[in-house]
Amino acid sequence: MTEELRINFPRLQEDLNALSEIGRKADLGLYRMAFSAADMQARAWLTGRATDAGLAVHQDGAANVCCRIGNSESPCVMTGSHMDTVPGAGHLDGALGVVCGLEALRCLKEQGVELARPVELVAFTDEEGRFGGMFGSQALSGKLSPESIHRACDLNGLCITQAMADHGLNAQDALTAQRSPGSVHAFVELHIEQGPVLDHAGASVGVVQAITGLFKWNVRLLGVANHAGTTPMEMRRDAFQGLVEVGSAIATVLERHGGTNSRATIGRVELFPGAANVVPGKAEFTLEVRDTDPGVLIELSHAFGAAISEIARKRGLVFEFDPLSEITPVACHRRVIEAVTESVRSADIAYLDLPSGAAHDTQMMASIAPAGMIFVPSKEGRSHSPAEWTAWSDIETGANVLLNTLRRLAS
Amino acid sequence: MTEELRINFPRLQEDLNALSEIGRKADLGLYRMAFSAADMQARAWLTGRATDAGLAVHQDGAANVCCRIGNSESPCVMTGSHMDTVPGAGHLDGALGVVCGLEALRCLKEQGVELARPVELVAFTDEEGRFGGMFGSQALSGKLSPESIHRACDLNGLCITQAMADHGLNAQDALTAQRSPGSVHAFVELHIEQGPVLDHAGASVGVVQAITGLFKWNVRLLGVANHAGTTPMEMRRDAFQGLVEVGSAIATVLERHGGTNSRATIGRVELFPGAANVVPGKAEFTLEVRDTDPGVLIELSHAFGAAISEIARKRGLVFEFDPLSEITPVACHRRVIEAVTESVRSADIAYLDLPSGAAHDTQMMASIAPAGMIFVPSKEGRSHSPAEWTAWSDIETGANVLLNTLRRLAS
Repeated sequence: MTEELRINFPRLQEDLNALSEIGRKADLGLYRMAFSAADMQARAWLTGRATDAGLAVHQDGAANVCCRIGNSESPCVMTGSHMDTVPGAGHLDGALGVVCGLEALRCLKEQGVELARPVELVAFTDEEGRFGGMFGSQALSGKLSPESIHRACDLNGLCITQAMADHGLNAQDALTAQRSPGSVHAFVELHIEQGPVLDHAGASVGVVQAITGLFKWNVRLLGVANHAGTTPMEMRRDAFQGLVEVGSAIATVLERHGGTNSRATIGRVELFPGAANVVPGKAEFTLEVRDTDPGVLIELSHAFGAAISEIARKRGLVFEFDPLSEITPVACHRRVIEAVTESVRSADIAYLDLPSGAAHDTQMMASIAPAGMIFVPSKEGRSHSPAEWTAWSDIETGANVLLNTLRRLAS
Repeated sequence: MTEELRINFPRLQEDLNALSEIGRKADLGLYRMAFSAADMQARAWLTGRATDAGLAVHQDGAANVCCRIGNSESPCVMTGSHMDTVPGAGHLDGALGVVCGLEALRCLKEQGVELARPVELVAFTDEEGRFGGMFGSQALSGKLSPESIHRACDLNGLCITQAMADHGLNAQDALTAQRSPGSVHAFVELHIEQGPVLDHAGASVGVVQAITGLFKWNVRLLGVANHAGTTPMEMRRDAFQGLVEVGSAIATVLERHGGTNSRATIGRVELFPGAANVVPGKAEFTLEVRDTDPGVLIELSHAFGAAISEIARKRGLVFEFDPLSEITPVACHRRVIEAVTESVRSADIAYLDLPSGAAHDTQMMASIAPAGMIFVPSKEGRSHSPAEWTAWSDIETGANVLLNTLRRLAS
């Protein structure tokens, strides 16, 4: 068994602390949205740090910052995450994977580790979605088109074409960033879990087995609005009471048709007319269902459709829905899972196999390369908030696992 | 048994049709809000019709239009309703009681019916609540104060003081409109049901036994907002699922602690943060509970409090509520119920004993006089809408019952 490599922890801390200050608004958190001044500053910072370490750095057509070691023509082993943030973000979501990737490449280089394949770090553009999300990883995996680039605009109507032009970049060049399927031997992303599972279990590392897909519906139940005082309970066609039954049905439907990775959430509800003294004539709500298994997800969509239809029929309500989005689940690749698992086992690290409930750049990369993820714990599952936190000891452990996983995959 | 008197139906139709045109905006319905130009026109119309019929008419300090027959000093028998409307109203809510009262007084006068007591019709000011509601009947029953008059303003910030001054009236004069408790022998109001019970039962008249009271709470269930993808179902403290259980508990609580007149409604709901992909950390909603029995209403408030507390405790949620309003139920007076019942029985009319689920001026008048109500059917329970409808035959029947009830009470 090879001895496990170790990252330079003080240097990693210094880098993470430095990146954490770029785009910070005091205790409101980080504002480092794609192509903001802070995002551009982060790119310059990364480019500088990588250059200082003697890595080959270039920015591709999608403005992904790519750092590489090794000159062989073999397919590369790639790691990557993102430096852009949501507004009011924590300091770890995305940034951790980039900083640990940088540290891993530096270590492989300075420790003179012999590798059969080049190793590349990519800091992906706009993962968080100012302009729609995963722009950089979509570019690399060939999912952009001239039209989709043209249509990518932020909530204020500023389009990515203009945002990139403001920095001397041509958004349509993103099409040139596409990598061919054979060119990436394996892709692995280190990320915070953004959920409570590792923290609750007291595990330092999660070996991600799959990334959940989802379907999201906008559901309407139509009844009859009536005076809450004059309409006896048995004469009502109360749309809210229909929603109550749908809410109750979630547990039953998941139990019968879902698995341990299934989630279903009603997160937004509006009643019409929405007055205390009027029986609701309409309930409109979102239903978002996730699972790691494409088959389970399809079964769940049929089961929820059937359950809501039955509730509506029984109560004299009309059931309508619009699908809002649908994302296919992605299984992580055996090659990556095994390299990560060997790395945690060799270092005797407490780990868990678990799914990713959130979407990541890895989801895009999986279509052109064997892909997988390494999670570190999120304190109480908090994320997209300045309260996002991972213990330094877990960060060190995660970075070491990433380093050794890359070494294994590149050997 | 006295022969039952009959109203002049063509004249009643003519009056109702005439009043139905005052404040009409084509098919949007009536806009005759208190102290609007249309409301002032309706007052002038009523004053003219009553004067033409030889009734003694005056407008009291609260701008109630009062029409009277009989000169005796005895306590009067009073009927009344309102001519003001909500925006976009139907033609019957309030107006029907005023027009039928006018017709009843005319008939009693022209048919030379011998009466021991004066009979008075009052068209009450602002029942519908532009300036808070039941201004006229609150004035008569002594419930106004200089401060409450001063504070009565509409949604645009126009206060009743100004609105009345614009028509040469002093709102503080409303205090002079108070009647002494002994001065009204009985009060009876004819009104549309505004609910579906009579229509469903095929009855022409409802003999109102009580007017429901209510309590209205603003309830908050506080959980923890979490990522809908990364938070396993069993680790959630989902405020919406708490609301679902509260919604389910309504039927059980009413069954155990309520009666046939109990109603409970959740009409407004807001989830926070209110995004499809976030487990709701807070659910805020109204709970409005009505009953005709003050004791039942108190029991229901305890039962709902206990049920929600238990649900919150079980789910690790925090339960908070603010009482928004509380109205004590009013039992109708035996004297009035008996006079109405005799009148429907003598004419062999299909009737039902039922509660009023909505609030009416009668609720105020009950504190200074034996009071009761007569309902006529509302087609499919529709009200506060241009679709409000009652068959002419039921209107005729209701008007005759009002006439004979007044005669019985005044004899």
